[in-house]
Amino acid sequence: MCGGIGSRFWPYSRAHLPKQFIDFFGTGRSLLQMTYDRVLELIPSENVIVVTNEQYAPLVSEQLPDVRPENVLLEPSRRNTAPCIAWATYHIAARDPEACMIVTPSDHLITREQLFIDAIRNGFEFVEERDALLTLGIKPTRPETGYGYIQVGEPVEKDILKVKTFTEKPDLELARVFVESGEFFWNSGIFLWSARAIKDALHRYAADLALEFDKGLNVFGTDGERAFIEQHFPACPSISIDFAVMEKAGNVYVECVNFGWSDLGTWSALYDNSPKNRDANVTQNCNVITYNSTGNIFAVRDEKLVVVSGLKDYIIADAGDVLLICPQAEEQRIKQIVNDVQTRFDDKYL
Amino acid sequence: MCGGIGSRFWPYSRAHLPKQFIDFFGTGRSLLQMTYDRVLELIPSENVIVVTNEQYAPLVSEQLPDVRPENVLLEPSRRNTAPCIAWATYHIAARDPEACMIVTPSDHLITREQLFIDAIRNGFEFVEERDALLTLGIKPTRPETGYGYIQVGEPVEKDILKVKTFTEKPDLELARVFVESGEFFWNSGIFLWSARAIKDALHRYAADLALEFDKGLNVFGTDGERAFIEQHFPACPSISIDFAVMEKAGNVYVECVNFGWSDLGTWSALYDNSPKNRDANVTQNCNVITYNSTGNIFAVRDEKLVVVSGLKDYIIADAGDVLLICPQAEEQRIKQIVNDVQTRFDDKYL
Repeated sequence: MCGGIGSRFWPYSRAHLPKQFIDFFGTGRSLLQMTYDRVLELIPSENVIVVTNEQYAPLVSEQLPDVRPENVLLEPSRRNTAPCIAWATYHIAARDPEACMIVTPSDHLITREQLFIDAIRNGFEFVEERDALLTLGIKPTRPETGYGYIQVGEPVEKDILKVKTFTEKPDLELARVFVESGEFFWNSGIFLWSARAIKDALHRYAADLALEFDKGLNVFGTDGERAFIEQHFPACPSISIDFAVMEKAGNVYVECVNFGWSDLGTWSALYDNSPKNRDANVTQNCNVITYNSTGNIFAVRDEKLVVVSGLKDYIIADAGDVLLICPQAEEQRIKQIVNDVQTRFDDKYL
Repeated sequence: MCGGIGSRFWPYSRAHLPKQFIDFFGTGRSLLQMTYDRVLELIPSENVIVVTNEQYAPLVSEQLPDVRPENVLLEPSRRNTAPCIAWATYHIAARDPEACMIVTPSDHLITREQLFIDAIRNGFEFVEERDALLTLGIKPTRPETGYGYIQVGEPVEKDILKVKTFTEKPDLELARVFVESGEFFWNSGIFLWSARAIKDALHRYAADLALEFDKGLNVFGTDGERAFIEQHFPACPSISIDFAVMEKAGNVYVECVNFGWSDLGTWSALYDNSPKNRDANVTQNCNVITYNSTGNIFAVRDEKLVVVSGLKDYIIADAGDVLLICPQAEEQRIKQIVNDVQTRFDDKYL
């Protein structure tokens, strides 16, 4: 899944070049490419399905030239994760009704790739054998208030347990209790299941969505698929898969993993996951000279030189035609800022 | 005079486009053009001599298309104000030995133009009649520590007094005493004199400089002037006219004026002289959205949008390939910063 707009990283992430397409760590590979490289250890390229917004088709073909054009599903409108996953499921089931799937965002960071691969292999074995929806739960390392949590129940297999509850983002006090209890894991948004299991669950818990796709049962995988989607996809409700299915279904399991994960959902998360210089500044592959400045994150493109004095714990993000300077503690404000910018300048700076 | 490099305004002022060539106030006219417009009220265009570094010849001809090419004196190297003024004096004297001159920097702000014109007319009358070096002293409005001061002595004519002493930049306490005394005026660096008077003074107080130019007495105003300057100008000592002549001569007078002057020598000076929005931010003709931010100065080119939260009394200067964020209180550090930048990146960002 790589159709999101990444507005929490504005202006470094822009509508025309969202976060997942950016080489965030200056490694030469974008987050999307890093995700692709990772799953290629598990899945042959011809079985990798990329779902994105149609506006990003050129970016996907540029960044993932090895993915066949027919494997890139182009959403005509933004409808959150449930319709995205439903389409991919129907598309995959048309090619192989017995298929198992891993569903993953393309803008996460995973640092311990071999542990990731081992965990996914273990999870696939689990979902191949049963009608189960498996989500990956990350062992929490701090009382993070920016993530949803999963409370685990009965153990079933190695590292795999029943899910007791899904919890929305907690406040700090509750997050501390969660972490100390050992019963709560971060909700990663990475899922494993058989196409059959998720289709069944969609019919049961998100019937309107499933019925919309059922109308095209015999077009998926054919030349008619694109026209069908153009007509029916915009009619789908905009809803997340968590809300539509996972929080309602009874056959939900969690695999508890610990492979160095971050959703890179916030500037703070990027800061935490980036190498720091001796003044604890993170300089995203850019030329920075600092005086009396610590704990900042600099996200600046190309050869630009940034000289800063007297800033502590700020975000300094320069995207050519937009510059943002904002305390990291106020990063929640960025969505509001983006709204304000749109109010004043329309889409010019989005 | 418009050959300076304006490094105190780096990176808004750059080696390839220094301060005097920038439209600082978004009025459509650069500081140089504003200076030219001002003197045109007093002096016909054919008598305006522009002295600049040869690297700025294209900028001068672009910004002052009405100034004849032969009136633009191109310095082959930077030698401070005394050699610059000496050359202009010899050049003017060759055209008219009886000429009177106003010598003015091109990067100052003068807000009350009619008072300026009246003062210059009054000053010209004074220097036409006698062997006098007249400097303009600005009535101080605050205990500024960034300016030199002139202590006045005996009154001679309307608003014109003998100079008692020139004083270097004082500390704050001394500056307060100066301002309260009523005897001290800011040294503006604007001078009036006859070509004959300044030539005499150069011979008496800066003989090495005068003798260098005497070698070319019969080339000024001819086709040979350029070649002579190429050969002899670099041999001149690098010295200011204040230090070389004004602080030594006995026939120095000051005209006390009050025409709304700033040398725009610092970001603070620019801040003080610029219109502020309701949050006391100065936005140099750029798109700025601020949250919880006051007292800042934004100097950003073109259509760039700057969004800032939680900054108080900072300079935010973006020059395309360089961004500077620095507390106004630390603006003295900018010269050091420019040195550091040169050490690390050579001339790339100067």
